[in-house]
Amino acid sequence: MRRILLFLFCAPFMVQAQGNNDSVYIKKIADEIMSNGKAYDLLRQLTKQIGGRLAGSPQQQNAAIWGKRNMEAMNADKVYMQPCKTPSWQRGGKDFAAVVNVNGKAVNQPLAALALGNSLGSNGLIEGELLAVANFDELEARKDEVKGKIVYFHSMFDPTIIQTFGAYGKSGVYRGTGASRAAKYGAIGVMIHSLSSAPDNAPHTGAMSYDNNYPKIPAVALGPNDAKELYARAKKGTIRVQMQTYGYFLPDADENNVVAEIKGSEFPNEIITIGGHLDSWDVNEGAHDDGAGIVQTMELLRTFKALNYMPKHTIRFVLFANEENGGKGGAKYAELAKLNNEKHVFALESDAGGFTPRTLGITCSPAQLTRFQNWTPLLKPYGTEITAGGGGADIGPLKTIDPNVVLSGLSPDSQRYFDLHHAKTDVFENVNKRELLLGAVNMAALIYLVDQHGVK
Amino acid sequence: MRRILLFLFCAPFMVQAQGNNDSVYIKKIADEIMSNGKAYDLLRQLTKQIGGRLAGSPQQQNAAIWGKRNMEAMNADKVYMQPCKTPSWQRGGKDFAAVVNVNGKAVNQPLAALALGNSLGSNGLIEGELLAVANFDELEARKDEVKGKIVYFHSMFDPTIIQTFGAYGKSGVYRGTGASRAAKYGAIGVMIHSLSSAPDNAPHTGAMSYDNNYPKIPAVALGPNDAKELYARAKKGTIRVQMQTYGYFLPDADENNVVAEIKGSEFPNEIITIGGHLDSWDVNEGAHDDGAGIVQTMELLRTFKALNYMPKHTIRFVLFANEENGGKGGAKYAELAKLNNEKHVFALESDAGGFTPRTLGITCSPAQLTRFQNWTPLLKPYGTEITAGGGGADIGPLKTIDPNVVLSGLSPDSQRYFDLHHAKTDVFENVNKRELLLGAVNMAALIYLVDQHGVK
Repeated sequence: MRRILLFLFCAPFMVQAQGNNDSVYIKKIADEIMSNGKAYDLLRQLTKQIGGRLAGSPQQQNAAIWGKRNMEAMNADKVYMQPCKTPSWQRGGKDFAAVVNVNGKAVNQPLAALALGNSLGSNGLIEGELLAVANFDELEARKDEVKGKIVYFHSMFDPTIIQTFGAYGKSGVYRGTGASRAAKYGAIGVMIHSLSSAPDNAPHTGAMSYDNNYPKIPAVALGPNDAKELYARAKKGTIRVQMQTYGYFLPDADENNVVAEIKGSEFPNEIITIGGHLDSWDVNEGAHDDGAGIVQTMELLRTFKALNYMPKHTIRFVLFANEENGGKGGAKYAELAKLNNEKHVFALESDAGGFTPRTLGITCSPAQLTRFQNWTPLLKPYGTEITAGGGGADIGPLKTIDPNVVLSGLSPDSQRYFDLHHAKTDVFENVNKRELLLGAVNMAALIYLVDQHGVK
Repeated sequence: MRRILLFLFCAPFMVQAQGNNDSVYIKKIADEIMSNGKAYDLLRQLTKQIGGRLAGSPQQQNAAIWGKRNMEAMNADKVYMQPCKTPSWQRGGKDFAAVVNVNGKAVNQPLAALALGNSLGSNGLIEGELLAVANFDELEARKDEVKGKIVYFHSMFDPTIIQTFGAYGKSGVYRGTGASRAAKYGAIGVMIHSLSSAPDNAPHTGAMSYDNNYPKIPAVALGPNDAKELYARAKKGTIRVQMQTYGYFLPDADENNVVAEIKGSEFPNEIITIGGHLDSWDVNEGAHDDGAGIVQTMELLRTFKALNYMPKHTIRFVLFANEENGGKGGAKYAELAKLNNEKHVFALESDAGGFTPRTLGITCSPAQLTRFQNWTPLLKPYGTEITAGGGGADIGPLKTIDPNVVLSGLSPDSQRYFDLHHAKTDVFENVNKRELLLGAVNMAALIYLVDQHGVK
């Protein structure tokens, strides 16, 4: 009884003491990153010296070599490549779209346009009457009018959805499937409103896929200003548009995931993964998407080594080869994990921009979540709290090899992300140094806590 | 007993029902602002058509007229000017600083420099040996070395302070008082590290003041890159620098606070004030500081009128004439409130940038704070929570006429603010539309709750 009482009295104290130690160490991590962090300089190299890194491009291969060399220089226990086949979609030329006739009167009004990733070229200039629809419901209702026309989907973001990823999910289906939905009824081309609420006219590309049952028609995203104007005009009259795109596929490319590792001291066979993806679209520098996640991942390696942190678990820092137009990097990582019979306990992805961190979302059991949420007071001074649900496209496949692996994702503030996501504006100049570093601080703090206290 | 029991059972339901109504109305406010908000367009006008608005400048006067006309067009019950004398500091020319000699060898290295606001000109080019000190402690320790020299204070931001206003407070004292502290020991000029952790070289101006007991020597802020390099070189050798500034004062100017009002239906004599300041520094467009606060204030008026909201209390929307280099707008507003025997119950200021909103800080009694914090679940979907302590320089003087007035301030995310605060980079292009509007949403929600439920 006495022992039990002693335990009962001590328990809160122990939790407190543990919390204090953790908060001291997390402060040490934060001071190191905010004072000496290299993520911003690394991002400058990746974006300005290498540039856009579409899977299959020379830049993507350079980026992998750059990542490997830098993580070697950071003294990881080992750094290696995981060879991985990726698609090699080529834009092939300068995409073109224009309004050429309004109510029977010839005009010449170019539209800011980018072919959607994975879409095939138009085989020369095509022209057709525009059928502008608000959504798939309207397309279905007007399916008899589609044949021979170019369909425009007004896939504008709903501005009232405060978390912009919600609006992206709602409108994103038009980018993904709009072409085949329209081709089913005989459309010869598709245009969408860029998946963005930016008050500018830069078009936003991004992945689409074809349904093999229908003709593979060309598809472009229009700049937000042009798209809104086009939709308003189409409501009032008859418009003819032209478009020309050049997309095609080369044979799959030989790319690499880049993996650095610090061996665990207590549980070397239990693996914690941190990662982002190396590839980006071709039209920008992939600074936020996902240069930020790449250099934050590298920053965590640098910081743990700089602090001489000896993790209990094995920690892997992974630069995934291909997310944007294939998800081949994450699939390969999980495939090899299964093949090598690895035990993965936790994975954290950063692929939502290098903006100021707001939450760390975790996908786990309710009991685990309660436990993780006890860490919120330790994270809050650095801007985040722990919320339910999180992960990412690159670490997602780990769940298929072990449903118990805990997945998490850094959620930065989302207001600015879709202003530049997949557009030419996603460049280094639009990343803020402190915001980028602060994301790394919160990621490192979470990894430290998971490593120290486990996931159960 | 039965009645009491009934009350006990009903009370949570009543709170719930009230919360539901509030959440429905706040959603209505948010939808209106995010869909139809005009703050961003107004900010474009203020920054691009009017520009920088130093107190006493023609632009500041234009801005007041612009504000009055726009608030009249928004159908406020009344809109009026409060005449107010403000300082009229003039930069007077293009500030200059350079390194001209290193270890006895002549060089010619211009330094990015801006005279501090309120500082007086150098009366021609001055030259002296540089004494670079880390802080006031080092100045005091080396006071015998100061005479005839130009003192540099290395007032760099501490990067480990996560809330950047903390770093501003810590380093800001060098801008405010550095000149006179150095002049006391015979310095002929002062340079400081700009109050910024931006990874660039734009110098940041801002207010200073002289101690009348010592000579009024010229004072400049150096661009962060130049400042760091200068400090590093001064540690290693003897450096001579030149500087030339031109600051002077014109007689005080006739400016105006602009006040719009919606009369209260239940408590017309109890006033809620919302505001920001019209003036800015001369070197930029004052987009974040404090164009954002101005257009958010106007957005609240527009929104309440658009929704036909009939407030219980009288709500005032105030564009304060002068904050940056005198605080005369807020002082005049409080002076008139006292003179007119007004009862002020609550005031909210936005003067920390148009970035994504994080908290609404409130200065009030602990009991009031507990009550206000019950509103956090209503605000959290829009990004903020209620925290202790808040207000602002313009509404602060209200406290001197009634210590019970509750003061509050919008605190947006602070990571980017001091990158551009008082520098040429504080321009419209660096304001994000959604972030700006979302700030207005949270301000409007708080004002709605205060108006509906009072402050007690």
